Amino acid sequence: MAKFGFKQLHKDKKTRARVGEIMTPHGVIRTPAFVPVGTQGSVKSLTPEELDTIGVQLYFVNTYHMYLRPGIEVVKKAGGLHTFMHWDHPLMTDSGGFQVFSLGRSPVSFPRRRESVLVFEETRIPDQVGNDNKKMVKITDDGVEFQSHWDGSTHLFTPERSMEWQSALGGDIHIAFDDCTPYPVSHEKAQKSMERTHAWAMRSLKAHRQGALYGSIQGSVYEDLRKESARFIANQNFDGIAIGGVSVGESKKEMRNVLEWVVPLLPDDKPRHLLGVGEIDDIFTMIERGVDTFDCVAPTRLARTGSLYVRHGQIDITKSKYAKDLGPVEKSCTCYTCRNFTRAYIHHLFHVRELLAYRLATIHNLHFVHMVVNNIREAICANRFLDCKRQWL
Amino acid sequence: MAKFGFKQLHKDKKTRARVGEIMTPHGVIRTPAFVPVGTQGSVKSLTPEELDTIGVQLYFVNTYHMYLRPGIEVVKKAGGLHTFMHWDHPLMTDSGGFQVFSLGRSPVSFPRRRESVLVFEETRIPDQVGNDNKKMVKITDDGVEFQSHWDGSTHLFTPERSMEWQSALGGDIHIAFDDCTPYPVSHEKAQKSMERTHAWAMRSLKAHRQGALYGSIQGSVYEDLRKESARFIANQNFDGIAIGGVSVGESKKEMRNVLEWVVPLLPDDKPRHLLGVGEIDDIFTMIERGVDTFDCVAPTRLARTGSLYVRHGQIDITKSKYAKDLGPVEKSCTCYTCRNFTRAYIHHLFHVRELLAYRLATIHNLHFVHMVVNNIREAICANRFLDCKRQWL
Repeated sequence: MAKFGFKQLHKDKKTRARVGEIMTPHGVIRTPAFVPVGTQGSVKSLTPEELDTIGVQLYFVNTYHMYLRPGIEVVKKAGGLHTFMHWDHPLMTDSGGFQVFSLGRSPVSFPRRRESVLVFEETRIPDQVGNDNKKMVKITDDGVEFQSHWDGSTHLFTPERSMEWQSALGGDIHIAFDDCTPYPVSHEKAQKSMERTHAWAMRSLKAHRQGALYGSIQGSVYEDLRKESARFIANQNFDGIAIGGVSVGESKKEMRNVLEWVVPLLPDDKPRHLLGVGEIDDIFTMIERGVDTFDCVAPTRLARTGSLYVRHGQIDITKSKYAKDLGPVEKSCTCYTCRNFTRAYIHHLFHVRELLAYRLATIHNLHFVHMVVNNIREAICANRFLDCKRQWL
Repeated sequence: MAKFGFKQLHKDKKTRARVGEIMTPHGVIRTPAFVPVGTQGSVKSLTPEELDTIGVQLYFVNTYHMYLRPGIEVVKKAGGLHTFMHWDHPLMTDSGGFQVFSLGRSPVSFPRRRESVLVFEETRIPDQVGNDNKKMVKITDDGVEFQSHWDGSTHLFTPERSMEWQSALGGDIHIAFDDCTPYPVSHEKAQKSMERTHAWAMRSLKAHRQGALYGSIQGSVYEDLRKESARFIANQNFDGIAIGGVSVGESKKEMRNVLEWVVPLLPDDKPRHLLGVGEIDDIFTMIERGVDTFDCVAPTRLARTGSLYVRHGQIDITKSKYAKDLGPVEKSCTCYTCRNFTRAYIHHLFHVRELLAYRLATIHNLHFVHMVVNNIREAICANRFLDCKRQWL
């Protein structure tokens, strides 16, 4: 198998935006790259061939979800996630921490019923709220004990177990087990969470056996902590850097701050992944500040609610004004959906809740995001990133 | 546009089974042919390209559903169903009668909530029960007044309107508006229903403007009525013959009887369609008795509940015994699902309610039915229909 590696190919003259290549055993990822989320072992409603056609280079699977269902053993027996899901390109798994910690911030009790299988959010389990629910999650320096969102059964995640499970899942890129700092949070608590993250990063590194491993930076919205965390993680022997804790409720301004504090402290020869962010405007914000890859449920989740990307915004295709609109979702889009179906037809499918609606919408939104990111990649090579940003926003 | 026509190409030596070709403006249909149901303008979860790959030659759209949502005007403005749905092959629409009459046999009141968008039955509105609900449907010799299953608003279907709407929808094959006889029913009521069907058949013929028109045979389980209806419809200037009222609750034995009474009275030079029947064993029963095409929701509906066709039966993929089964759904199947995914993966997708589950299952069941029917077609040409039947059942 080919080794993991990263090459920075070009850096924009006016910003930190850069173009590069991540080498993995399942192929090369051209960066910047958007990473769709296949939470439970499937990017909702789509086949691997469709993802490939859209231009998806890698996607993200949640270790927490695979651990609970179908269970790590099943995937291992199947030969790993690539074989299990029939996906022959790069794959990324997370540490499992994000979901586990988000359980601790939910006021909902078990058994939990999903509101809708169709719009169920890919990564988070419940709606996140700021408070702690001690009953469901117990955090110690050893790891996190939690109850399954399916049946309330008790489980323990530790850095060592996360590494073992991610290894069994066989993704190309793994993420160190971290303490996902809640938001908002006091400086004192954020510091304690960061210190635990660093301790767990070291244990993750020690336990890690195969695949590339990214260390995770925490520190909430505090400049001193974020910088300390960035320096600490950058100094360890990780293959790449993940920036965590940005998607839990911080504002876009706070995200910009975090990136401006953190990225200058990171080495150029390691890829940088921002966890859980990826709306269209965020994509420009992140890339401008030197982020290479970013996973996000927004394009796929929005699609399933009928929010479709168009130039300079979104349309809600379920609105009655689209019932007789015989144009495509977006004129300049070349996706399967826009080439073959009208807004009126997609409106109709949503209106009568046909399953095809969610597919056509997901294809469009994913294609659109990839079109934007491809555009940005070309613009960076031509030192035109800021022009490109102005054109899209 | 090419004209509509039918050619009988070969007849099995020992049974009434026959192979033929239906010519339509959108291409030739090789018969016998299974006709999937695209109730609301979509064969649930699949794209037209997927249907084509599976070997679907034509499918069925319900006029009732298109009339209510998105409305006939929208489809007309879009250039007809073919353009609206992006399907360039033959299409069939029904008269709208089946759904309207089934409303009258439901005890459910408005507003009706669907139990599940995923397994919602394609053609019938509510679960059918034997009783009449006078509030929702008013049948007169003019037509049928009914309340929409969406919002309870009142509408009138007549033979003339059904013809006008089917014309606007632009399918290749239309069906005359008939009085769908309920089951069980007295001889007296069945006769009245048959007579109304004949009167409406004549009005349908008169109002008919474009596309091929099939007349519909009724008469319930009564030999004299079925024969009278067959003779009457066969004597009119229809392009094809539809056999109705068989899917409303009659037993498989009663269906066999109906076919044995009716088919010998039909001309060889017109195609015969059986409405609403198509489980694997039924397919052999029908073809053996001279039916050319048949629409049915069974393969697609069963798929969405996790019932998958295998040789000599079905498996319920949601059962835990498939959780670690790394074989394909059916070894001898060459469909996309069986070529690329394991029972364990499909079990997992159903278990966690991923949308891809319904697609992979639907692709498999439709492919399987087409494989059976293709097999039968070849067997008839070789005068081996009965051998073929023995092999499959």
